[in-house]
Amino acid sequence: MSRWQPNARGRLEQATLELFAERGYEQTTVAEIAARAGLTERTFFRHFADKREALFSGQDALEALLVAAVAAAPEAAAPIDAVAAALAAAGAQFARRREDLLLRQAIIGTHPELRERELIKLGSLTAALAGALRRRGVADSAAGLSAEAGTAVLRIAVERWLGQDTSDSAGDLDGIIRATLAELKAVAAGA
Amino acid sequence: MSRWQPNARGRLEQATLELFAERGYEQTTVAEIAARAGLTERTFFRHFADKREALFSGQDALEALLVAAVAAAPEAAAPIDAVAAALAAAGAQFARRREDLLLRQAIIGTHPELRERELIKLGSLTAALAGALRRRGVADSAAGLSAEAGTAVLRIAVERWLGQDTSDSAGDLDGIIRATLAELKAVAAGA
Repeated sequence: MSRWQPNARGRLEQATLELFAERGYEQTTVAEIAARAGLTERTFFRHFADKREALFSGQDALEALLVAAVAAAPEAAAPIDAVAAALAAAGAQFARRREDLLLRQAIIGTHPELRERELIKLGSLTAALAGALRRRGVADSAAGLSAEAGTAVLRIAVERWLGQDTSDSAGDLDGIIRATLAELKAVAAGA
Repeated sequence: MSRWQPNARGRLEQATLELFAERGYEQTTVAEIAARAGLTERTFFRHFADKREALFSGQDALEALLVAAVAAAPEAAAPIDAVAAALAAAGAQFARRREDLLLRQAIIGTHPELRERELIKLGSLTAALAGALRRRGVADSAAGLSAEAGTAVLRIAVERWLGQDTSDSAGDLDGIIRATLAELKAVAAGA
């Protein structure tokens, strides 16, 4: 058997999500995940340290996407506008994966251990955003504050989007992100 | 021996901090902490689940302080101003404990496991602040955004305060909190 498997990582992620949703997080084994993906346990462990990490590996890709979008923002853009560009990039990616994100939210919401891991990943996302802003020449505290504002807006906007009935306004995550950022601006201004 | 010990909890917290700083986090045992505080291990475990929790118990008091300050803010205060009042209350309490906070920061900074715990406590602080704002009638997303802004400002201001040379401006944490909040407002406005 060849060591290389086309999109093994993505298949393992998808199988993890499905099995956690169907059977529960505790009940699912790595052997079952590998079998569902048509791969071996050995291949699973080549990609992930454990079943929990397979649920969170998307966060690393998200981090890379946000950092790249901040770096690509026009040189003259204010820090909050560079952050807004990053949020728009994240929103465009999330919008295509609403069903998966709903499953993921339901799984994480019922396990404190997974909620903690999510929080830690979000902290690392904030730090990466702040680093990307500093590399644009933004001062330390402004970079930190803009990054915190950005991840707060993203988290709250995604929650709102996943929580709403989308029967007739399907997928307008971009609009919700913009509205939430506008609300942060209003809140900060003391409205 | 009486079960009741005057300020046992505070003495255990102080002993924990001292021993972690002197001997390191891993090397310190609960038996040593109890001995330093002049108490028994049994008393330690009546207050804390483990040595790590003894380092973080101040966070619960901080959470109660912030929630009380938000509740006590004038009815007409905007959410961000209620948050500012809470930050001022926290700052007044921190300002008296600079040396302890420096020790604590150094210990946490060198242990990923403790940094994660700090992040989780900060997440719980944000949720508690948002809850206090909602009880004032603030809408969900404005409460969440104001709370996130508040904990971000507090964390960044305290880091800045602990990092500065205070030989001639000792303890002006209150001023730094105000300046950081003003900076958040400027950043959000796109300055």
